[in-house]
Amino acid sequence: TTNHRIALIPGDGIGNEVIPAARRVLDAVAARHGLGFTYETFDWSCERYLSQGAMMPEDGLDRLRGHDAILLGAVGYPGVPDHVSLWGLLIPIRRGFQQYVNLRPIRVFEGVPSPLRGAGPGDVDLVVVRENVEGEYGEIGGRLARGLPEEMAVQEAVFTRKGVTRVLDYAFSLAERRGGRLTSATKSNGIIHTMPFWDELVAERAAAHPEVAWDQEHIDALAAKFVLDPQRFDVVVASNLFGDILSDLAAAVAGSIGIAPAANLNPERDFPSMFEPVHGSAPDIAGRGIANPLGAIWSAAMLLDHLGHPEAATRVTDAIATVLAKTPVRTPDLGGTATTED
Amino acid sequence: TTNHRIALIPGDGIGNEVIPAARRVLDAVAARHGLGFTYETFDWSCERYLSQGAMMPEDGLDRLRGHDAILLGAVGYPGVPDHVSLWGLLIPIRRGFQQYVNLRPIRVFEGVPSPLRGAGPGDVDLVVVRENVEGEYGEIGGRLARGLPEEMAVQEAVFTRKGVTRVLDYAFSLAERRGGRLTSATKSNGIIHTMPFWDELVAERAAAHPEVAWDQEHIDALAAKFVLDPQRFDVVVASNLFGDILSDLAAAVAGSIGIAPAANLNPERDFPSMFEPVHGSAPDIAGRGIANPLGAIWSAAMLLDHLGHPEAATRVTDAIATVLAKTPVRTPDLGGTATTED
Ligand SMILES: CC(C)[C@H](C(=O)O)[C@@H](O)C(=O)O
Ligand SMILES: CC(C)[C@H](C(=O)O)[C@@H](O)C(=O)O
Repeated sequence: TTNHRIALIPGDGIGNEVIPAARRVLDAVAARHGLGFTYETFDWSCERYLSQGAMMPEDGLDRLRGHDAILLGAVGYPGVPDHVSLWGLLIPIRRGFQQYVNLRPIRVFEGVPSPLRGAGPGDVDLVVVRENVEGEYGEIGGRLARGLPEEMAVQEAVFTRKGVTRVLDYAFSLAERRGGRLTSATKSNGIIHTMPFWDELVAERAAAHPEVAWDQEHIDALAAKFVLDPQRFDVVVASNLFGDILSDLAAAVAGSIGIAPAANLNPERDFPSMFEPVHGSAPDIAGRGIANPLGAIWSAAMLLDHLGHPEAATRVTDAIATVLAKTPVRTPDLGGTATTED
Repeated sequence: TTNHRIALIPGDGIGNEVIPAARRVLDAVAARHGLGFTYETFDWSCERYLSQGAMMPEDGLDRLRGHDAILLGAVGYPGVPDHVSLWGLLIPIRRGFQQYVNLRPIRVFEGVPSPLRGAGPGDVDLVVVRENVEGEYGEIGGRLARGLPEEMAVQEAVFTRKGVTRVLDYAFSLAERRGGRLTSATKSNGIIHTMPFWDELVAERAAAHPEVAWDQEHIDALAAKFVLDPQRFDVVVASNLFGDILSDLAAAVAGSIGIAPAANLNPERDFPSMFEPVHGSAPDIAGRGIANPLGAIWSAAMLLDHLGHPEAATRVTDAIATVLAKTPVRTPDLGGTATTED
């Protein structure tokens, strides 16, 4: 058996319900595919912050470093400011481990109706490749003249040739393995100096991947097309902020945020990658055992794929599709009455 | 009769087809409501750029200054870079005339099916209030180490207390006159220093408008909710970039970008305001007489409202609703065979 060391960070709220469910799926797959998983669970969370003053210990990244992958539930707790919970845990892991690709597959499953009239099962099958460590999100920025009439806040978006090129190369390679089509999200018609640079690099990398048919769309028009014609997209590559917006939008088009998974990848495998459902900690339903575990389970499938077990991964996503298509089992967010355990 | 001086800038492509149509509607309304319009038409466009080297003359803003309002078609032409056509005309007018509110109403009309299963006529009736002169779009930014491995591009987003407060006050006042509800788009859970500042100012202005029920949503979740539950929104206020994305998205939810109007308002009336359809110059169909004039006509209705003629404005939007609900007249973008003239 191949052994893998997995770090589990359930986090807050329903993270504590969906991660155990995903772990059971991993164990079931392990038994059938000759894999072994050793888990270490970390209690890093807003609760830890409230009792110990920090989301994770100072040497948090070092403790994760020896693992092959990280499976994270969700972070966020009423009363703990987002900047504490996110900058204290999620963002440092993404950035510290150079997880520069955020991969978000979106499918319309049979049994989960899309809110769009025109989108039937199988119609929508796309992946958003989001740049995950630079761009519009960054430490450079702040506030001047606090409280005064002339007060202002600034934020510096930074796009580097290295940072953009590597995520584009990942996206073009993914398009080669999938449907051979790539769409780049841009906004080079506004006054955003970083976007013409992004476009130039897309054209450069496209030349290195001549088999991929590509185009680019302004983010406003692209958001509209996700609603008017989502079928046409295969791989969509976008900056940190644009990818964040597009992936939530696409998950809504597919009918459910509760199913959507995400992988934060360090493709070079210099550091562990991290897998997490797109949904949040959902304090309103936490503790009731009714959270939808499919986002976490699909994230676990992406973990299997990343660790070199694509067949095991497909077995899990096929199982998700089968449960949704052939059984009435669904949690309340999908209109059913099933529990997480079911 | 009340006389108004209107500057017409048809611009490029189908701008030259939809502006004359909107003008005929203005004239018809004028006859019935005792209004008089004097038009001056400006040929500022990409064509002018190609023949004379500039989208508009150097004293362009001065020539517009004496008008009561500006009706613009669209700018953009294959081969002319967006930054030329937009920074050379559209953006200087928005900024030079302090049109800090970009107002974009969105409705699902009877006769124009929404792509959403759940959205029937009358269900969706919202307004996006977009900050229009500062924020994520700006002159501050550029490129370092061009062509070298260490190349980078930066963009500075600047949010000022004055700039944010005034657009928020406009949005809260609009919410008071409409359904009494306001949603603020934010992204204060990412690392974007300007967004917590935006949130603080929203809370400040909310205190000054206690009758308005308000909430805030992160832009990613909000984009998803525009698809999953658009009925719940009334007034949505957003930064320049977020408002740009949300208004195109909402227009798609309403089933057509061809109908969507926009007003670039200087609420203090120190400068003329500008009205323009949301759609672009559409070079692919330009010159064929089949462009949808409803976006321009609805924009003309917003112009009437701004000039103090709300009844005339309502007559025009009612006429749009009637044509769509009771007649088969629609242009090809809406699945019909009508011409712009029809
Ligand atoms: C063309 C572009 C600069 C413009 C914008 O982003 O402001 C357009 O998208 C709009 O919404 O009016
Ligand atoms: C919580 C937030 C910082 C995060 C992001 O924007 O990256 C989330 O929206 C996501 O998409 O993972």
